[in-house]
Amino acid sequence: MSRNLLIVSTSTVYGQEYLSYCEEAIKAFFAGKKEIIFIPYARPGGITHEEYTARAKDKFNQLGFEVKGLHEFTNPKEALKTAEGVFTGGGNTFVLLNQLYENDLVEVIRERVADGMPYMGTSAGSNITGLTISTTNDMPIVYPPSFDALQLVPFNLNPHYLDPQPDSKHMGETRETRIGEFHHFNTQPVVGLREGSWLHVQGDQVSLEGPLSARIFEKGKVPYELSPEDDFSFLLQL
Amino acid sequence: MSRNLLIVSTSTVYGQEYLSYCEEAIKAFFAGKKEIIFIPYARPGGITHEEYTARAKDKFNQLGFEVKGLHEFTNPKEALKTAEGVFTGGGNTFVLLNQLYENDLVEVIRERVADGMPYMGTSAGSNITGLTISTTNDMPIVYPPSFDALQLVPFNLNPHYLDPQPDSKHMGETRETRIGEFHHFNTQPVVGLREGSWLHVQGDQVSLEGPLSARIFEKGKVPYELSPEDDFSFLLQL
Repeated sequence: MSRNLLIVSTSTVYGQEYLSYCEEAIKAFFAGKKEIIFIPYARPGGITHEEYTARAKDKFNQLGFEVKGLHEFTNPKEALKTAEGVFTGGGNTFVLLNQLYENDLVEVIRERVADGMPYMGTSAGSNITGLTISTTNDMPIVYPPSFDALQLVPFNLNPHYLDPQPDSKHMGETRETRIGEFHHFNTQPVVGLREGSWLHVQGDQVSLEGPLSARIFEKGKVPYELSPEDDFSFLLQL
Repeated sequence: MSRNLLIVSTSTVYGQEYLSYCEEAIKAFFAGKKEIIFIPYARPGGITHEEYTARAKDKFNQLGFEVKGLHEFTNPKEALKTAEGVFTGGGNTFVLLNQLYENDLVEVIRERVADGMPYMGTSAGSNITGLTISTTNDMPIVYPPSFDALQLVPFNLNPHYLDPQPDSKHMGETRETRIGEFHHFNTQPVVGLREGSWLHVQGDQVSLEGPLSARIFEKGKVPYELSPEDDFSFLLQL
């Protein structure tokens, strides 16, 4: 298995520019590639594919890569068949996955990733690398034909993972409670990726990068923390 | 139209007992009824139908009503056909709606509500009174056959509505941003109901109760506040 994934919690951390905190990792990840295809389908804030692609293009150009939006191709499926690398931006996970199904792109992305094409996602674009989108934080504003995601890894992601706030007076569930509810109905582990963290998956190896620890949720176990020094590869064997 | 609905944001406000802050409203709402059927399908925190019903029963007994859990009936559809009143508790909106579809209960609840049977919901139980569950805050931990909800009112609800926190360093979307995204794909208004608020719908009249204002989101308009003194009935005519 030659997969090569960069699963990033958020495109932007507080007080910094778009993708700047992880730009060295992005440069290394796509090293040697000329043009990256950007998947703008998640439409954060409802912006258009054009507007969203312009934002990604601007940043990637600075890093030395050309970018073309997937919506610019007459046949997006064919475009992905020969893509050198893919970056899927964040926004709404339901809108993103729905559009991937509508354009019949799920299978081709799986095939290309199995083949070694580097795939990077942020937020919603990271969510869909898991088994299902059932641990997204997003509002279900459109109804996709399935919650099954790209399944590039055999676990689920919770990007923008947020710790319970002890002083909160809000009675809505914490993120941890929600993931606990998820495990009443689902068995796969969930990785809570805090803003500033990303997973790098290379073949059968997984490492956590960035300065923070990640929170791991396994069904029937007390949630626990793993840090960048720990080995995350067991997540591929569960 | 003789519908009679109590659409409550949360069962519990910070620092108080289950349903205590709105108990006078509940007593008045179900006045003259002997037995209420409790729908425990939303399973907050994954608790069982039995455990959840015990909690509701305890409180409703104090208020002078008998309670039977819908799961206690061999034929839940028949049970709802003759129910004096229904209370649907909160938890996970996807789990709740999925179970209603599995047991083929959506239509019978609609019919009985059109017939005047009082329906009270809290949180997820309020969410499903709207057109769709697309403005829930919950995680999509199961895949329901549709996002179409009970459609007892022609708008959507966002219970536990939360204002943006100006000092937050978290980069996930605010509730207002999420509802803005919803309106890129959907047209119905959304009522953001803060914890401590509830809507009372009687026929063609809607009023907001509790001490707080509610936030109204209409497609193409700047979101705005309405207070309990304002008339909410226009929401039924949009």
